Amino acid sequence: MTKPPGHDKSPENLKAALTEFIEILGQDNVMTDHEIMKSYTGSDWSSYVPKENEVPAIVLNPGSTEDVSRIMKVCHKRVIPVTAYAGGTSLEGHFTATKGGVSIDFQRMNQIVALHKDDLDVVVQPGVEWEALNEELAQTGLFFPPDPGRGAKVGGMVATGCSGTNAYYYGTMREWVLSLVVVLADGTVIKTRQRPRKSSAGYDLTKTFIGNEGTLGLVTEATLRLTNYPENQTVAVASFPSIHSAAGCASAVVRKGVHIAAVELLDDVQMETINASGLTSHHFEESPTLFFKFSGTPSGTQEQISIIKDLAEREKVKTFQFARDPDEVDKLWGTRKSALDSIVQRKKDPSDRVWTTDVAVPISRLPDIIEETREDINKSGVVGGIAGHVGDGNFHAMLVFSNQEQKLVEELIHRMVKRAIEMEGTCTGEHGIGLVKRDYLPHEVGESTVDAMRKMKQAFDPLCLLNCDKVIRMQVPKQEEVSE
Amino acid sequence: MTKPPGHDKSPENLKAALTEFIEILGQDNVMTDHEIMKSYTGSDWSSYVPKENEVPAIVLNPGSTEDVSRIMKVCHKRVIPVTAYAGGTSLEGHFTATKGGVSIDFQRMNQIVALHKDDLDVVVQPGVEWEALNEELAQTGLFFPPDPGRGAKVGGMVATGCSGTNAYYYGTMREWVLSLVVVLADGTVIKTRQRPRKSSAGYDLTKTFIGNEGTLGLVTEATLRLTNYPENQTVAVASFPSIHSAAGCASAVVRKGVHIAAVELLDDVQMETINASGLTSHHFEESPTLFFKFSGTPSGTQEQISIIKDLAEREKVKTFQFARDPDEVDKLWGTRKSALDSIVQRKKDPSDRVWTTDVAVPISRLPDIIEETREDINKSGVVGGIAGHVGDGNFHAMLVFSNQEQKLVEELIHRMVKRAIEMEGTCTGEHGIGLVKRDYLPHEVGESTVDAMRKMKQAFDPLCLLNCDKVIRMQVPKQEEVSE
Repeated sequence: MTKPPGHDKSPENLKAALTEFIEILGQDNVMTDHEIMKSYTGSDWSSYVPKENEVPAIVLNPGSTEDVSRIMKVCHKRVIPVTAYAGGTSLEGHFTATKGGVSIDFQRMNQIVALHKDDLDVVVQPGVEWEALNEELAQTGLFFPPDPGRGAKVGGMVATGCSGTNAYYYGTMREWVLSLVVVLADGTVIKTRQRPRKSSAGYDLTKTFIGNEGTLGLVTEATLRLTNYPENQTVAVASFPSIHSAAGCASAVVRKGVHIAAVELLDDVQMETINASGLTSHHFEESPTLFFKFSGTPSGTQEQISIIKDLAEREKVKTFQFARDPDEVDKLWGTRKSALDSIVQRKKDPSDRVWTTDVAVPISRLPDIIEETREDINKSGVVGGIAGHVGDGNFHAMLVFSNQEQKLVEELIHRMVKRAIEMEGTCTGEHGIGLVKRDYLPHEVGESTVDAMRKMKQAFDPLCLLNCDKVIRMQVPKQEEVSE
Repeated sequence: MTKPPGHDKSPENLKAALTEFIEILGQDNVMTDHEIMKSYTGSDWSSYVPKENEVPAIVLNPGSTEDVSRIMKVCHKRVIPVTAYAGGTSLEGHFTATKGGVSIDFQRMNQIVALHKDDLDVVVQPGVEWEALNEELAQTGLFFPPDPGRGAKVGGMVATGCSGTNAYYYGTMREWVLSLVVVLADGTVIKTRQRPRKSSAGYDLTKTFIGNEGTLGLVTEATLRLTNYPENQTVAVASFPSIHSAAGCASAVVRKGVHIAAVELLDDVQMETINASGLTSHHFEESPTLFFKFSGTPSGTQEQISIIKDLAEREKVKTFQFARDPDEVDKLWGTRKSALDSIVQRKKDPSDRVWTTDVAVPISRLPDIIEETREDINKSGVVGGIAGHVGDGNFHAMLVFSNQEQKLVEELIHRMVKRAIEMEGTCTGEHGIGLVKRDYLPHEVGESTVDAMRKMKQAFDPLCLLNCDKVIRMQVPKQEEVSE
């Protein structure tokens, strides 16, 4: 463990820094208003509840890589901690300014810098939303597959190494970034590589920064791989007698190597909740349900559907329906996407919270862990749905709870994570470690591996300026901070 | 730049180390015979010609991760440089013991540790050959896609981040490794992650070690992703009037997003050479030729073939033929794979050498760079073929030359690499940097990026024990070592 970071957050130092920031960005892009500062601490859907003092002193809106580099030079010289902010949709406390200091909001850096249609790539700034990007790309027939939560921006998507429903077929963010421009903790600007689709020139720094959670550097530009928008998409929905049989079918489909674009699971609670929410016009069977997405030629899709129907029947499928037209495709798939929104509606009191967490396991263990977790939630009496990217062995529990239920929920999640790690899985399949899951990391990968990660952090950010203490604790934690 | 590594290669130190190695491995697995040592310096197909003194003093054959850890603890304590050796098929000097000291040969660590059929993964030791692995997997219907040169082993495949003809569809080694056990320079053993197909638990150390070229740690176990063996493979071969039109067709196929399993190019010299070699019974048109591989349902494949035929006709294709049966599929595809072997036959004198090098560019630039490089080779009078994984914008020049032509060949390759970098490409698409391409790296990615890589090296191997000075120069080079 290293010694505590010597951050200088004295009023004099921050005041002097402020003057320098205004020089760099102009008055309009430097904020200190307390109300604004508070909006950079958390969100309604974040699992981490910020403490009173976890508020930035200054929020900056840079307009360019050069701006960010100059900001970091000031923060480096003055040893001021920095937190990056893009879409603010992450769940594990990534953008909470736990050390105070400066938050950098990339909202002004929201441009598509260059679209290379013939190379199937696009250069974007970190403030670009993935949905806006795909709208822009639609006219060219191209598309960018990673589909995390609504509102997520490229900077955060790189930082968390996000994925979503398309990951089963297309892979995660890791597979869709060709190159990054990154500002390091001391203000140095690096470009990880050029634009060829394949390279083995030196260490894979692009991948180093994907999933760095804002702790190793700040992404100021990304070159993203694109692909052609899939033709002839269709969706099938299958409901099962038990969660074990639904997960078992998903697992069998993966094992069989059926060419599907996605396979998602929503459990019975989730389906009830969706019916009750009024967010979709369709009324669904209130049983554990798989949503399959297909793309390809009509005859190819028919073949795949018949294989899947066969596998579903072995798991005693109750109903199996298809979208009859593109409109219904959107509607059925939209249902899957409304899972979190519908769960939020189950708050009984405005002070209730929603805790969304995820784990992933080797695919053969999926039926067991999902069943055990469902039973555990039922026993606890807490309202919670299970939904997941089951093709990747990855699922989410979304729990709605009151203050009184806080401890109960913490314990539920603790057992779910423990189960995943014991099954050779991971404490997080796509949300990242952030603040909330730091103490699971040594259990999952071992102390020596966490030490290796710490060496990497020290190499890139020896002053611990960037999202200090997230992902990896840099200081020995107090006894009560660490769970079993 | 760091100070020169203080390696201790004194006879006393090596002798004392030898005693410790024998204690760890037993006499049979510790070698010092000079003839054996010389076989760890290079190969007939390596671009790097080892100097007289670039020979290990000791070769070790460990049998387990624990052995490797104990070896590294000795080398760390005694500051002895270490070079890893797996299949010995790399091209850029990776396994040459440039610093003397110890070479670790992983040949005894050649076991499949665990096959998890239902999870689509397999745990293997670094000495497993990819072809042997696929033979073993064949009975389960599973397969491991990366297909580098014959004889390559998993340890080296991870170290170079290899790829091959399957990379266009399946991705490179980077996409097929779930987790690694790595012994670090001080003997620490880490496991990068567990076995789920998706994880965002901490920094992506797995990717850090893929492509590390033996400089950051020694891989002692790898968990590899598997997929189902593709059904109904077929192959089509199309010959074109010019290399520009052949590359243009490949580029158009990629841009159109046609679902093919692979697309490879061999130029006219390569096709002549293959006809002359007698390595295949088929007689080919001696023109620039594309080899397409398809997999999927018969009707799906027919659709793809007709789209490709159409794109080929726009480029004035001369001939277009298909494999009529599985035997012909193997024969035609085998032709592509015989490119290097046939070129080797063109040596006029046993002292002639073959230099195989690769670059990659954004796909739209492929026709230009291939044409310019072909013309440049023609003008030089050197015998050389061009072959490549053109779906990835990646191609190889394979040059046969005498001692007198050495300078000519160096200049040809220099111009080819320069061309690639100027087109926003890379000095190596899949072979790695090793010793030969170190000085291109700063031109390609910039000095600040190479510095960031150097920080990573220093974090993991501060004594510069592992393949010291490969990928990145740790010491300021002498003037004459660095090209333009």
